[in-house]
Amino acid sequence: MQTIDLNCDMGESFGAWKMGDDSALMDHVTSVNIACGFHAGDPTTIRNAITTAIQKNVAIGAHPGYPDLLGFGRRNMSIPHKEVYDLILYQVAALKGICESLGTRLHHVKPHGALYNQAAKSRELSGAIAKAVKDIDSSLIFYGGAGTCLITEAAKLDLATASEVFADRTYQSDGSLTPRQHPNAMISDTEVAIEQAMRMVRSHEVIALDGHTIPVKAETICIHGDGPNALEFASALRTAFETNGIKVKSL
Amino acid sequence: MQTIDLNCDMGESFGAWKMGDDSALMDHVTSVNIACGFHAGDPTTIRNAITTAIQKNVAIGAHPGYPDLLGFGRRNMSIPHKEVYDLILYQVAALKGICESLGTRLHHVKPHGALYNQAAKSRELSGAIAKAVKDIDSSLIFYGGAGTCLITEAAKLDLATASEVFADRTYQSDGSLTPRQHPNAMISDTEVAIEQAMRMVRSHEVIALDGHTIPVKAETICIHGDGPNALEFASALRTAFETNGIKVKSL
Amino acid sequence: MQTIDLNCDMGESFGAWKMGDDSALMDHVTSVNIACGFHAGDPTTIRNAITTAIQKNVAIGAHPGYPDLLGFGRRNMSIPHKEVYDLILYQVAALKGICESLGTRLHHVKPHGALYNQAAKSRELSGAIAKAVKDIDSSLIFYGGAGTCLITEAAKLDLATASEVFADRTYQSDGSLTPRQHPNAMISDTEVAIEQAMRMVRSHEVIALDGHTIPVKAETICIHGDGPNALEFASALRTAFETNGIKVKSL
Amino acid sequence: MQTIDLNCDMGESFGAWKMGDDSALMDHVTSVNIACGFHAGDPTTIRNAITTAIQKNVAIGAHPGYPDLLGFGRRNMSIPHKEVYDLILYQVAALKGICESLGTRLHHVKPHGALYNQAAKSRELSGAIAKAVKDIDSSLIFYGGAGTCLITEAAKLDLATASEVFADRTYQSDGSLTPRQHPNAMISDTEVAIEQAMRMVRSHEVIALDGHTIPVKAETICIHGDGPNALEFASALRTAFETNGIKVKSL
Repeated sequence: MQTIDLNCDMGESFGAWKMGDDSALMDHVTSVNIACGFHAGDPTTIRNAITTAIQKNVAIGAHPGYPDLLGFGRRNMSIPHKEVYDLILYQVAALKGICESLGTRLHHVKPHGALYNQAAKSRELSGAIAKAVKDIDSSLIFYGGAGTCLITEAAKLDLATASEVFADRTYQSDGSLTPRQHPNAMISDTEVAIEQAMRMVRSHEVIALDGHTIPVKAETICIHGDGPNALEFASALRTAFETNGIKVKSL
Repeated sequence: MQTIDLNCDMGESFGAWKMGDDSALMDHVTSVNIACGFHAGDPTTIRNAITTAIQKNVAIGAHPGYPDLLGFGRRNMSIPHKEVYDLILYQVAALKGICESLGTRLHHVKPHGALYNQAAKSRELSGAIAKAVKDIDSSLIFYGGAGTCLITEAAKLDLATASEVFADRTYQSDGSLTPRQHPNAMISDTEVAIEQAMRMVRSHEVIALDGHTIPVKAETICIHGDGPNALEFASALRTAFETNGIKVKSL
Repeated sequence: MQTIDLNCDMGESFGAWKMGDDSALMDHVTSVNIACGFHAGDPTTIRNAITTAIQKNVAIGAHPGYPDLLGFGRRNMSIPHKEVYDLILYQVAALKGICESLGTRLHHVKPHGALYNQAAKSRELSGAIAKAVKDIDSSLIFYGGAGTCLITEAAKLDLATASEVFADRTYQSDGSLTPRQHPNAMISDTEVAIEQAMRMVRSHEVIALDGHTIPVKAETICIHGDGPNALEFASALRTAFETNGIKVKSL
Repeated sequence: MQTIDLNCDMGESFGAWKMGDDSALMDHVTSVNIACGFHAGDPTTIRNAITTAIQKNVAIGAHPGYPDLLGFGRRNMSIPHKEVYDLILYQVAALKGICESLGTRLHHVKPHGALYNQAAKSRELSGAIAKAVKDIDSSLIFYGGAGTCLITEAAKLDLATASEVFADRTYQSDGSLTPRQHPNAMISDTEVAIEQAMRMVRSHEVIALDGHTIPVKAETICIHGDGPNALEFASALRTAFETNGIKVKSL
C-alpha cells in the first residue's frame, strides 16, 4: 500500500502576533515543521506547538530559518556556510531539547523560506545545513524539495531524506518549481491541485507548465497553512488520498 | 582535601562585537558559563566557546538571560514565570544540543544578570528557572548565589546545586551582596579580595560590611572576566588557593 | 460647545504579522498613536499607517515603547532614565521625519504599554520622556493618563498636554485605573462604558469601583483597537457623543 | 586651492559592546557617518556620537544599513526596493531629528556595508535609497562610491553628491574596487596608500591593479576606523595633504 506524508509549517506566531491555526491544521496533516525563533516562533510558541503536536499525534520537525524576523526568513541572505552551519546547529538543538523535555522526540528538519530556496540550488549551502542536522542527531529525517541539492547533499551524509512536493505550485520542465513571480506559479483550483498531488504520488510524475510529463519523487506534500482555505484544502486532499487507497501517514 | 571551583561568564561576544578573552581566561578557571544568545552570544560565538572549553578542559555551563541584547540582560524585567520557564528551556536546550554535537556534555546552568538577581529574591522565579533546567536534564548542576532562593528552590527539585560566592564583592550582615550602587560594593584591592575568598572557602564565613562575621557556603567563586586585570586576578586567586592546599577544580 | 478626542493605537503590525484594522478604525477616531518600531511597527508599517492617517484626516501621534518586540512593550523594565530619554528621542525623531517626508506634521506623542504605566507613577521617568519629546519638537502635544505624573511632568516643561481617560476601564477612588488583574478592571458592557465616557466628558467626574464620585479631566478617550467589537464600540461611542451635542475632534 | 574631505564610520557600538574610538578619530577626519541602529548603533550611542561630533566640529552624516545586527549589515540581502526606501526613510529621519534636538543639522547620508556595495551596482536600489534621502531632506549630501550607481542615481534626483574613494583599497581597470577576497584588495603599506590618495585628489586618477591609469573623482576619502593603526594613518594622511597644499575640510 502506498503512503504519503502531509506536512505543514507551524509555530509561526511571535509574541503578541498570532499566525496560523496550528491546532486545527494538525487534524489534517501528519507532520509539522515548527519555526525555531530566528524567522518566527518564540520559546512559548514553540513549546505550545510541540505540546499540541504531541496531543494530535503528528511527527514533529524543526523548521530553521535565517535570522530575519522582519522579513520572516523569506529574503535571500548571503551568509558564510560555516555560519549557516552554526545557525542550524543552534536552532535544531533548541527544538530537539524542548521536544525531549516534553517526553517526545524530534523527527525531522526542514529548512525554511529563503534558506530552503537558496540551498535547493547550492550544494555547499545544502551540505552545511545537512551536516549541522547530522551533527545534532543523525537519525533525523531531512526534508527538502524533490530533486534539489537539499536531498542529494543530505543523502551523501547518509541522512534519511524526504522528497517534498507541492500540490498547489506548478513545475517547470527541468523539475524545478515555477518562481512565485510567474503568473502561473500557483494552482488556485483545488481540483487541479489535488489531481496534481495524486499523480505525483501514484505515478511519480508531474505535468510541467510547458506540457511535458516529468518524473518526480513525492514522499511528503507541503500544505500551506496561511491560505484562506487551508483547512478545507488539507481536508479535501487527505480524503482524496484515502479514497484512492493511499495511506496518509508520517514517514 | 578542600576544593573550590572558579567560574567565569564567557561567550559574550555578538557578531562583529567582541567581548572578553575567553581563551586566556579558560587557563585560569575551572568552569565557564556560556551566554545563550538572548542577552549575548550568537550561534558561532557559542560553538567557538564550547570548542575552546573542550580544549582547555573546563566544565561547560549554560548562562541563560533575559531577551535583552541592548541591555545585555542586566535590566530587570517583569516576565510571567511561565514564560521565563520557556525562555530557560529554549536556551539550555540549545546549549545542551550544541555541546553534544561537539562530543561533550553540558555540566551546569547559571542564570545571568538581572535574571540571577531577581530570582535570588524570588522563590517563584527561581522555581520556574530550576524547573526548566530539570526538565531539560535533571543531572545538570544549578549554580546560584549562596543562601539565595536560587539554591533553595533548585534543591527542592532535587537538582544538584553549587553555591556561588564573590571574591570582589562585599556582603551585608544578612548574607546578601551589597548592592552595586553602594560605594563599598566592590573590593578593588586584590589582596583583600583573595583574603575574603580564602576565608569563605576555608572557614565558611565572610566578614560583612558592618563587621559581623556571617556563615557562607562557598562551592564556586565567580571571576569577573571583564575587568582590566581579570587575568591577573584569576591567576593570583588560583595560586593563593593552591599554595594553601585547596584544590581548584570543577564540581 | 464641548469637544472630545478619540485616540487609538495603530501601526502595530510587524513584518509578516498583521495586527489591527488601521484603516477601518481611522473612520471612527480623531487621533492615532503609531508604534515606532521598538515594541511593534516597522518602517513600512509606519509609513503605511501615516499615509492612511493623512487620507482619513486624523491627527498623527508617535507611540514610543520599550525595546521589547517579544513582549510587545507590555513588560515592565528598569532602564536608566537617561537611556529612556534616548529611546524616546530616537523613536519620536523617526516618526516626525517620516511624517514630514509625507507632507504632514507629527501632532502628539503618547507613551506605550509598560512605559506608560511605569511613568504614570514616576515623576523622574515621566520627566525623561517629556524632556525628549520637548527636545524633538516643543509644539508636540503630550498624551498621558489623566491625573498621572505623565501630565504633571509634561506641564512643568510647558508642553501642551492631553489628559487621557478610558471608557472601558474602571477607576479606583484615588483616580487611578483598576489594575488589569482585578476581576472588575474592564467594563465589558458597551452601554455602561458609553455612560462612563459621557459622564467623564460632560461632568468631569467618574464613579469609582467603591461608589465614590471622583473628579477627572477628560480630553481624549483611548479606544482599544484589538477587541473583537472595537469598530462597533468606537462607532457607538462617537454617535453617543454627537447625539449629546459633544463634538468629536482632535485637539 | 584644492580641498578634500576625510570621512569615517562611527557610532558603531551597541549597548554593552564597544567598537571604535570615535572621539580620537574625530580629531583627524572632517566628516563622520553615524550608524542608525539597524546594523549597529543604539539611541544612546547615536546621541553620544552626535554630541562628540558637535564638539569636534565635524560634519555629521547618517550611515543607514540593512536590518542585520548579527551580520553588522555586511551580508547581502534581497529586500524589495520599496521596503529599502522605507528602511532608509526611517533611519535618516531618526538621525536628522536627533541632530536637530542637539542644535545641529544632519549634513549627509552614506549607505553602509552590503547596502552600499549592492547599490553601487544597481540603479534601482540606488534610486530607492536616494529617493528616501531626498524625501527626508533635499539638502542632504549623498556620499557614494566614485563612478557607481549611487552617485549617478542621486544626481538624477538633483541631490548634491560626494564621490568617495579609498586610500587603502586597490582599484580595477574598470574603476571598481578590487573585491575584498582578492589577495591584493587592500593596501597595507601606509606610504603607498597615501601616495594613491594624493594622486586621486591632485591628478584625478588612480593606477589600477593591472597598471592602467584610470580617471577617478575624489571628493571624500573613507578612513577605516577599525584597523589597528587607524589613528596613525588618518593623522599621516591629513598631514600629507596639508603639506602638499590641499585643504582638508568637509564639503
